[in-house]
Amino acid sequence: MTTSPFDHPFLSGLLGDAEIAAYFSAEADIRAMLSFEAALARSEATHGIIPAEAAPTIGEACAGFTADMQSLKVATARDGVVIPDLVKQLREAVGNEAGEHVHFGATSQDVIDTSLMLRLKSVTFLFGGRLHAIVTKLAALERQLGANRLMGHTRMQAAIPITAADRIAAWRMPLEIYRDRLTEQTFPVQFGGAAGTLEKLGAEASAVRASLAQELGLTDEPQWHSRRSRIADLANLYSLISGSLGKFGQDIALLAEAGGEIELAGGGTSSAMAHKQNPVAAETLVALARFNATQLSAIHHSLVHEQERSGAAWTLEWLVLPQMAMATAASLRLAAELIGNIKRLGAG
Amino acid sequence: MTTSPFDHPFLSGLLGDAEIAAYFSAEADIRAMLSFEAALARSEATHGIIPAEAAPTIGEACAGFTADMQSLKVATARDGVVIPDLVKQLREAVGNEAGEHVHFGATSQDVIDTSLMLRLKSVTFLFGGRLHAIVTKLAALERQLGANRLMGHTRMQAAIPITAADRIAAWRMPLEIYRDRLTEQTFPVQFGGAAGTLEKLGAEASAVRASLAQELGLTDEPQWHSRRSRIADLANLYSLISGSLGKFGQDIALLAEAGGEIELAGGGTSSAMAHKQNPVAAETLVALARFNATQLSAIHHSLVHEQERSGAAWTLEWLVLPQMAMATAASLRLAAELIGNIKRLGAG
Amino acid sequence: MTTSPFDHPFLSGLLGDAEIAAYFSAEADIRAMLSFEAALARSEATHGIIPAEAAPTIGEACAGFTADMQSLKVATARDGVVIPDLVKQLREAVGNEAGEHVHFGATSQDVIDTSLMLRLKSVTFLFGGRLHAIVTKLAALERQLGANRLMGHTRMQAAIPITAADRIAAWRMPLEIYRDRLTEQTFPVQFGGAAGTLEKLGAEASAVRASLAQELGLTDEPQWHSRRSRIADLANLYSLISGSLGKFGQDIALLAEAGGEIELAGGGTSSAMAHKQNPVAAETLVALARFNATQLSAIHHSLVHEQERSGAAWTLEWLVLPQMAMATAASLRLAAELIGNIKRLGAG
Amino acid sequence: MTTSPFDHPFLSGLLGDAEIAAYFSAEADIRAMLSFEAALARSEATHGIIPAEAAPTIGEACAGFTADMQSLKVATARDGVVIPDLVKQLREAVGNEAGEHVHFGATSQDVIDTSLMLRLKSVTFLFGGRLHAIVTKLAALERQLGANRLMGHTRMQAAIPITAADRIAAWRMPLEIYRDRLTEQTFPVQFGGAAGTLEKLGAEASAVRASLAQELGLTDEPQWHSRRSRIADLANLYSLISGSLGKFGQDIALLAEAGGEIELAGGGTSSAMAHKQNPVAAETLVALARFNATQLSAIHHSLVHEQERSGAAWTLEWLVLPQMAMATAASLRLAAELIGNIKRLGAG
Repeated sequence: MTTSPFDHPFLSGLLGDAEIAAYFSAEADIRAMLSFEAALARSEATHGIIPAEAAPTIGEACAGFTADMQSLKVATARDGVVIPDLVKQLREAVGNEAGEHVHFGATSQDVIDTSLMLRLKSVTFLFGGRLHAIVTKLAALERQLGANRLMGHTRMQAAIPITAADRIAAWRMPLEIYRDRLTEQTFPVQFGGAAGTLEKLGAEASAVRASLAQELGLTDEPQWHSRRSRIADLANLYSLISGSLGKFGQDIALLAEAGGEIELAGGGTSSAMAHKQNPVAAETLVALARFNATQLSAIHHSLVHEQERSGAAWTLEWLVLPQMAMATAASLRLAAELIGNIKRLGAG
Repeated sequence: MTTSPFDHPFLSGLLGDAEIAAYFSAEADIRAMLSFEAALARSEATHGIIPAEAAPTIGEACAGFTADMQSLKVATARDGVVIPDLVKQLREAVGNEAGEHVHFGATSQDVIDTSLMLRLKSVTFLFGGRLHAIVTKLAALERQLGANRLMGHTRMQAAIPITAADRIAAWRMPLEIYRDRLTEQTFPVQFGGAAGTLEKLGAEASAVRASLAQELGLTDEPQWHSRRSRIADLANLYSLISGSLGKFGQDIALLAEAGGEIELAGGGTSSAMAHKQNPVAAETLVALARFNATQLSAIHHSLVHEQERSGAAWTLEWLVLPQMAMATAASLRLAAELIGNIKRLGAG
Repeated sequence: MTTSPFDHPFLSGLLGDAEIAAYFSAEADIRAMLSFEAALARSEATHGIIPAEAAPTIGEACAGFTADMQSLKVATARDGVVIPDLVKQLREAVGNEAGEHVHFGATSQDVIDTSLMLRLKSVTFLFGGRLHAIVTKLAALERQLGANRLMGHTRMQAAIPITAADRIAAWRMPLEIYRDRLTEQTFPVQFGGAAGTLEKLGAEASAVRASLAQELGLTDEPQWHSRRSRIADLANLYSLISGSLGKFGQDIALLAEAGGEIELAGGGTSSAMAHKQNPVAAETLVALARFNATQLSAIHHSLVHEQERSGAAWTLEWLVLPQMAMATAASLRLAAELIGNIKRLGAG
Repeated sequence: MTTSPFDHPFLSGLLGDAEIAAYFSAEADIRAMLSFEAALARSEATHGIIPAEAAPTIGEACAGFTADMQSLKVATARDGVVIPDLVKQLREAVGNEAGEHVHFGATSQDVIDTSLMLRLKSVTFLFGGRLHAIVTKLAALERQLGANRLMGHTRMQAAIPITAADRIAAWRMPLEIYRDRLTEQTFPVQFGGAAGTLEKLGAEASAVRASLAQELGLTDEPQWHSRRSRIADLANLYSLISGSLGKFGQDIALLAEAGGEIELAGGGTSSAMAHKQNPVAAETLVALARFNATQLSAIHHSLVHEQERSGAAWTLEWLVLPQMAMATAASLRLAAELIGNIKRLGAG
């Protein structure tokens, strides 16, 4: 075991996901933060808040900027957030005149939350594509094997015969709903300034925020520093996905244990028993479902976000939300793989 | 402490809610179950599944039926569900001919889940009304006190001045969203029979289910015995409500501790210190938020609902969901009361 | 579903436990609270804090006291705790002179936490007895059926043959440890006064607390108003018990599904399928394990008990801890029953 | 945000811990796994299970072995565990004759759980040292500032004056208990073979296991493949530590907000407000406490470890336990730092 299996040199083979992990690297985070700062400068220049010539200077600096990671780490230890030092580094890169216009009117949480939204927007889009592929695979399986007879089980006992299509539909239907919901999510910019009032922008505050949202491809909404329901809703949706895939995994593991009604390709080898074919992906789906079901609780505790901005509740989100996304990613990857390995289900 | 503060002789004064508790009594559950059985008989008679004359006989028996609770309790211990004995009792009440047509084609989970939906539909509607009242009160407070100056706080430190309106809006805005979402919820009938296939109803299965849904004022959907995402979504929404009200409570408690920027009527007395006025409702909102944040995890674990119907995952829902509704009800009641007690916020 | 299955008219047949529920009634709580007040008076009289003649007067009033429950409920809504009103009622019952000496130097949390300890002491003792009986039954089963061959399963796949004794020992061993740990628990008096300093008792504070502990059969320890680790440890132990019994339940359910290696008496009937024998107790053990695993989280959140005494964190304990005890009680009851129903395990 | 803040390039400045992280690297894990394989060979050679000359050959190979990480990753994806491929690689490194004696009679879970125990033993020892240092610092603070007057607060309201010593003692006392408990933990070897019966070792099974434990400095206990209470107990203890430190953090944050009764050195800077000194360490302690309180739930769900060895429940442990250790490490680090920054508490 190492700290996080999602980033782990060998456990990530089972539990990681290279495509999605890329969005949660420090580099991706900083890149998105720099997008915020560049877009903010453009928006503020457009509305006359900062000099027009400052914006391209800041934008170029952002494009070419490489952070001093060690300095960021030391500063994060002190400040609890990376932004004061990142902005300081960026101002130095921008240079004298324009430097002082970097990050004007913004606060740390604006940058960090917006970076998160930019990345979760991409992640959620990718999840939608994966769910679509899974739903398509399940529908194909249903056409191919659906007429097979399968013993229905209720309360862990054989009940009455059903068809493979009945079981497959129970796996597929919630996923279709989630796929559609993933595409309906909106991702708002975060921009409120020190205490949420954009007090430094005066009458232009709303206009700047609208420009900023548009620059970044996010929706324009009032700051949500202490209103975290969107985070909680997204976490709920992620956990619904891994939860329903966990139900699929549990069903496959039970079928594999009984043995007669399923034939699976793949399957893990054992260091002690050469004859075994372990339903590793199925079991892992169950573990990931329970992982997300647990983490969701922390996200809901974070709704108790005191006053204008909370350090404690916000930091708790950081500890949990990216891992929920990674667990969902691994679930989607494993489920697709597992469906592909179903060679027979029920009896013809 | 006693088992559940929600039903407790004296703790329910603080943590209970008489209006909502009525929907979670055994009597309310049985009443809703009898509605299912009567509506099922009517629907099946309409579609020629059972004799036309059986339906009114069953309906009248349901209307006049009083369950033998002791027998139900003994049977639930054995069967894990109340329905086999309830149906047996009901058949005896209905009498010879029609009796055998009671519950035709249905299974325990159909009755219990549908009873839950009938009651959650009412509960959710009442929550919507309460949230509307709270939003209205907050909007009034905003008009009345909004111009007052309030010290904004970030990371538990005084930051810059904001207005009372800024703070109140942060409380109000998520509640408006939840209020609208509460009205958008749909509540589906559960009807699938032994293993979800309505195998005893043949070609009339869908038509009977549609009639049943219409009779009961529920939406018509395929059975969801093992697809529990709707339950999880509703639990998520309940926990969002109590979570955002917990944020409100935490803010009030912090204001009350500092003392200078709020004046509250009410407040609890102390057995040791006559001078104190404890912000009891505010603290209780925090406790209820954390309670629901915890319980939501169990509901998401229940998504791992194995095979056609799970005993274990389903029973876990029973242990948690009604209490989440009660915690939400108490939150709404206390928040309304607490808003009414705000006499001053910030400085004019 | 109704609010708490533990107290429910018919669900308590499955999920309740009459013996343990008695300790969590409002009446049992008040009785224990009155024991505290009477013992406090005796202890304070002994050490000259209150007049000697006040103690028997208070003691007799406690013995004959019947609370006005409706008044307690109304007051709890206002005060967040029952004690101010209970003490007021008790003082009236005691009468003029001695009445003012009731509850001297104590605070609400002293009475409520001590009442809890008195009752959890009994409950924990009863759990120890039940675990002992379960361990004994399992040992008998091991002697009787242990030599039978059973297919060992790892990762949900048949592995290599083991004996029934191997499996039974895996069920029994953790329970033996818990049984011993239950007997090692100590239950401390809570006595600290308004802010934990027993400031009204001067030099006699420790001596009074020691007397009070002795009177009540509890251990003497400094007040623990804001140090809740003992509560968390006890909750951990309860959840270990239900967790290990959940593992037993899961194993039985899996054996019952496969069918060939176990024969069970009892088992629930189905409203839809007469031929089924559902392993209801086994499934319920799994549900109760997951319930307690969830609740334990709330108890650990309550460790963040701010300042001298917290309203929010403490109320959260009330919402969770008694139900954890009830879930543990039901687990122990069901496990004993289920073991008794094992007629065969493995093959001779 | 990136996947795990504990390993993150800059967030680890705040949330990581270099000393403890070293025990959760893939390299540390593999090193401990190789210790297991070498010690197993020696123990089996001693008891005549494998040829005497095989043990030093295996031992030397282990000492010089470097794993092919990419191969391990690919294999873990397939097998769910790293061991089959690691053993394969190791056998190749050992060479023809002795190679076939590597890992004799052992299973993947033996190696992985034992590696965990070896590392948690060191981690737990280090935690004990840190707690000792914290307790010592708090005791010094108590001597230095304890006589100062501090306003006691109950239910978020000023109550009566206490001393700084009263408050500091409430922080210190639980930590002393945890420190002592950390030193009492025992760490057992895991050795059971395919299904827990050490079936390949015959009459020497217990003797080999005892030797193996001794070689590794672990305690000798029967295999605990499916009995996870020790894991749950350790997780409980870790969460108690972070929970009590979270209470300390919350108290400091509340003192810092009120401002008059504490003076803190250090404190974070703000990107928006130059005048602020954020109590970052205090807030982070609260976040870490709630993180562990959440994770503990998953560990208790893992008690439902089906049959002889579970893939799903075991994998869930991997996802949670190392991070709980890291959160505890960060809590201890931050608490020590925060205590050192308390320059004044209360009024002289």
